[in-house]
Amino acid sequence: MEKNSKVWYQANGPEGDVAVSTRIRLARNLKDIPFPNRLSKAGLLEVARRVDEALASASAGLYQEFNRIDMESLNDYQAMAMAEKRLISPEFAINREGRTLFLKKDGSVSIMIGEEDHLRIQVMTPGFDPSPAYDLADKIDTLLDERLGFAFDERLGYLTECPTNLGTGLRASVMLHLPALRSNGMINRLSETISKLGLTIRGAYGESSEAAGAFYQISNQITLGISEKGAINNLISIVKQLISQERQTRKSMAGNEKNLDQIWRSRGILSTARLLESKELIELVSNLRLGIALGLFDDLDPSLPNLILSETGAATLMDRQKSVLQPNQRDKLRAEITRKILAS
Amino acid sequence: MEKNSKVWYQANGPEGDVAVSTRIRLARNLKDIPFPNRLSKAGLLEVARRVDEALASASAGLYQEFNRIDMESLNDYQAMAMAEKRLISPEFAINREGRTLFLKKDGSVSIMIGEEDHLRIQVMTPGFDPSPAYDLADKIDTLLDERLGFAFDERLGYLTECPTNLGTGLRASVMLHLPALRSNGMINRLSETISKLGLTIRGAYGESSEAAGAFYQISNQITLGISEKGAINNLISIVKQLISQERQTRKSMAGNEKNLDQIWRSRGILSTARLLESKELIELVSNLRLGIALGLFDDLDPSLPNLILSETGAATLMDRQKSVLQPNQRDKLRAEITRKILAS
Repeated sequence: MEKNSKVWYQANGPEGDVAVSTRIRLARNLKDIPFPNRLSKAGLLEVARRVDEALASASAGLYQEFNRIDMESLNDYQAMAMAEKRLISPEFAINREGRTLFLKKDGSVSIMIGEEDHLRIQVMTPGFDPSPAYDLADKIDTLLDERLGFAFDERLGYLTECPTNLGTGLRASVMLHLPALRSNGMINRLSETISKLGLTIRGAYGESSEAAGAFYQISNQITLGISEKGAINNLISIVKQLISQERQTRKSMAGNEKNLDQIWRSRGILSTARLLESKELIELVSNLRLGIALGLFDDLDPSLPNLILSETGAATLMDRQKSVLQPNQRDKLRAEITRKILAS
Repeated sequence: MEKNSKVWYQANGPEGDVAVSTRIRLARNLKDIPFPNRLSKAGLLEVARRVDEALASASAGLYQEFNRIDMESLNDYQAMAMAEKRLISPEFAINREGRTLFLKKDGSVSIMIGEEDHLRIQVMTPGFDPSPAYDLADKIDTLLDERLGFAFDERLGYLTECPTNLGTGLRASVMLHLPALRSNGMINRLSETISKLGLTIRGAYGESSEAAGAFYQISNQITLGISEKGAINNLISIVKQLISQERQTRKSMAGNEKNLDQIWRSRGILSTARLLESKELIELVSNLRLGIALGLFDDLDPSLPNLILSETGAATLMDRQKSVLQPNQRDKLRAEITRKILAS
């Protein structure tokens, strides 16, 4: 990744007051090679070799924008730091043997070789912007399919390791910041409706279903009997409604002095704390993000909340220091980095 | 009081890292007039007239430094605002009928006419500085005694309404900030020892014995069988020990990252909060004061904590706005004033 330019997850995108990021992911497999779970290391490396070749022959310009990363060359925290930034999946960070990653230098496209499927093509973009992200994923998919020949069945569509991905192999996700809908409890009722419409909603941070910082990930679940465009349009329509309801609810929130007090204090604490645990940081950044959206902090760049979150994950901190850090050391460094970002 | 110069309770005095203020109070009564609880309004006004006359004849210079305030001309919050700044006692603020106050323009000397005794001569000074305060109180006492003739018994000393003041009629008090001794619980053991030595220690803020913000008031209890100087020297020696123990304990406190984190956050919250309840404010200002004493906030004037506390009492806020304020309105105004003081 380029060190000195702003990468995708640190930018503020369309509908950035509510939408954090959009991700399009396609699951694809080569037809003449067994699925990764039945494949040797040599087999995995052969897939990587073919993808490398296909990328290079498809477009010299595109190929040069990618770094090829041998996942075995990374240590645990280097790999988990990439997962924290959502460049790769946590599973791919943990199980690195024989795995290869093709990562676009700005972090916006990653092709994981040997995750659950041979290829996971992932395109990420700040804010809510699924159509260009899908178009780019589709373009890469087409380029590679022409050269590699993906496993495809006329009736089932793209064949995948897990049946839940059969068909389009597409998962489109949007990360939304919904503090107002969490605060008035409406998110719980909405999530039932969302499930009925073939989508899931879950907390974007933390292991539990609890949505730390009111960050939610909404994704399509249906991949069979629907076109890729159809699935994306379905997601677009639901997300638009959620964004509009969140904005509506924020208006009444902004009239409440206690809410404003909490938002202002969060900025004060982020600017001064010497120790910040991860969970507290996420809640404070959530308030900061809401404050920016409400126009309280016109002196702050709207991308600051994304920047703080992307720089302060536990593994990211260790990657930065190039050493294992104890929780207390992380809390200290997390607070230090947060203060610097806010003072910049 | 002069509006544009720093008054005594807003300044930082000797041993100001631990000591907030020193107060010397003398209870005196005129010999030919009954005690205030058996005195008519006309009688109270007669006492005031005589004190006025005595002050004027004693020293024209001194007399001009005083304002004469008819306590009946004040409304409830105006009077309570003076009590919050410790210019008068809360009892004197509540029971104003026929009462007169002679108040030095910088707030450092007040003579309450008709509190529990005919005269309560009070001298206040920032930090820990009892000797000059006593000397001034003694000077005023002598000047007035020569002209008014205070009730005095060879065996009992000065005669007072309440037997606990008989003798010297002196109460010397020091307000100390003891966050380290509160934090490690040592203050509880020390207060037993202090009682045995004829002094009392109690919380300086709030009705309960709980010491909000770790602000404590230490005063002598013994007035009989001891000279005024003796009582003050006793207090000086105990307070010096407390100050030294507090400083010692702070050193180990300063090595703890969680303590430093709390101190820094307090500054952050005070600088940003939109609502501040009185009790929370006192705790936050206590942390701010400790941070200044530990050298963390070299950009802040050491008198800032005193200034914030003196400007944000409930009655002081109402006096400022010249209207009765509901708790929520006070919390808002308190936060606003605090932010302004910290940003200045």
